Amino acid sequence: MTPTQPTLLVLDADPPPRLGRLTGRARVVRTDAAHLAERLPTADALLVWDFASHAVREAWPGDGPRPRWVHTASAGVDHLMCPELAASDTVVTNARGVFDQPIAEYVAALVLAVAKDLPRTLDLQRERTWRHREGRRVAGTHACVVGSGPIGRAIARTLKALGVTTALVGRVPRTGIHGPDDLDRLMARADWVIAAAPLTEETDGMFDARRFGVMQPSAYFFNVGRGRLVVEDALVQALTRRWIAGAALDVFDAEPLAGDSPLWELPGLIVSPHMSGDTVGWRDDLGAQFLDLYERWAAGRPLVNVVDKKRGYVPGH
Amino acid sequence: MTPTQPTLLVLDADPPPRLGRLTGRARVVRTDAAHLAERLPTADALLVWDFASHAVREAWPGDGPRPRWVHTASAGVDHLMCPELAASDTVVTNARGVFDQPIAEYVAALVLAVAKDLPRTLDLQRERTWRHREGRRVAGTHACVVGSGPIGRAIARTLKALGVTTALVGRVPRTGIHGPDDLDRLMARADWVIAAAPLTEETDGMFDARRFGVMQPSAYFFNVGRGRLVVEDALVQALTRRWIAGAALDVFDAEPLAGDSPLWELPGLIVSPHMSGDTVGWRDDLGAQFLDLYERWAAGRPLVNVVDKKRGYVPGH
Repeated sequence: MTPTQPTLLVLDADPPPRLGRLTGRARVVRTDAAHLAERLPTADALLVWDFASHAVREAWPGDGPRPRWVHTASAGVDHLMCPELAASDTVVTNARGVFDQPIAEYVAALVLAVAKDLPRTLDLQRERTWRHREGRRVAGTHACVVGSGPIGRAIARTLKALGVTTALVGRVPRTGIHGPDDLDRLMARADWVIAAAPLTEETDGMFDARRFGVMQPSAYFFNVGRGRLVVEDALVQALTRRWIAGAALDVFDAEPLAGDSPLWELPGLIVSPHMSGDTVGWRDDLGAQFLDLYERWAAGRPLVNVVDKKRGYVPGH
Repeated sequence: MTPTQPTLLVLDADPPPRLGRLTGRARVVRTDAAHLAERLPTADALLVWDFASHAVREAWPGDGPRPRWVHTASAGVDHLMCPELAASDTVVTNARGVFDQPIAEYVAALVLAVAKDLPRTLDLQRERTWRHREGRRVAGTHACVVGSGPIGRAIARTLKALGVTTALVGRVPRTGIHGPDDLDRLMARADWVIAAAPLTEETDGMFDARRFGVMQPSAYFFNVGRGRLVVEDALVQALTRRWIAGAALDVFDAEPLAGDSPLWELPGLIVSPHMSGDTVGWRDDLGAQFLDLYERWAAGRPLVNVVDKKRGYVPGH
């Protein structure tokens, strides 16, 4: 070990793959949330591998000595951002790119499953009941995808490949992407509304009672972004009162979802455990992506996937 | 009513839509299976609307007076074909085209649902259990679609749009379509094997213990063709012994599936009630298709969707 080795602090619950490649080139220090605050001032870089943790936000040392670089093994950065980190010169990068195609396939799975009434088929199978029903054609339907980053765009590409007319909504209108002013109109005509936006001040609670109210009674709402995009009570009401036909939530205000949450048994709601982006090999993909960024950082080359800390996401093309 | 109106016999359980358009132009006589034999000799044309019935095969009048044209509101014709009908000059047409895209979407729904572990997600939701799991990426997987008619080709197109490398297998090899000699090799490397062939002497029982035996342990088998393509006992064995990861059957030897069938509770098997092609509006689509054929027939123009009665399907391009 030489004194020139940078200290890489790793906030994890289980060890990330591939860090063995840094042997002799970085002093890798693993920490849990309880010891994060005391270790942050001595770290040159921080890898937030435990992306469910909010510990960084709580432990960030403000003006004091701090890592020059923070990488989170997640697409969203809402769990670690705080005003002090946003104001600092610390560079934040994210896992942009790893989850795009898996999440797009997951959304396609939800669209097709509810269109073909698959959950009901599985219910009837448990009852040993043969009951013919009619599915819906997916080709020719309309989707509104909220979130115009790589994940939203991958969802749009995949749905289009299935013949779904798909509109993308982003923070600002640009070629091929609608701005927020179009959202109500697009939601009103959509068969599928998909939330895939980052959690920011602008998107916090954006799917509320008024917005569910403009949707068609035959339409479905899917959230694969962040739990707080949705006012959960408003969704409960929209489903209970049959304002919409159904919904699926992969993300929640509080994760894991509490065992006594009414969401588990809400008719028409599919609950999944924040898994839409996680396919076999995803942890290795995240490890490889971090290693690539580390090589750039150690060599003094520009990082990619750099988060705009004020906005809360990596600005798009 | 004039004596020149042809007699259209309709074997149905419930009235087909759109036949009102034939008022004054055809004598429409509805019949059930019990009265079919006595009415067939007086009919000019027969519409087999009740496509679950085997009554035509049993009631066909052999050499006697008989309809000149039989149309079935189904893609398969196995339920009505018999040697006497095959040998006669009666023209048989089917519902080719109506079910292609719906069945393709249904297969995509199955592929994506099992890749994303959706059935297990629904099970865990009933148990109020948050358990993160990893899905599979569908893009980059391999499918083998058996049946190279319009349905099989639509399945292949849809899976390819999802990034699945897809091989089509037909009765004879031709451009872009493999022959039966390639089947074992293709099944051995497939992640998804999809049965979408007509039921003929050649395909009866083609998915047997030996064929399930060549599949990968991680692979899934889906049948949206006809129940008898599959040796059900062999599939039970393949699932019980974990030769394959799972299966979905939409069609069965005997339909509806008996309440005491062991298939209902077979681990890894999804049972659905012969609904893969049936989307909202499908009955109207079938009625419209028949009307179009009727106009051609009444005008003496050539029919389309004419079944090769020896082969048991409409020969392809």
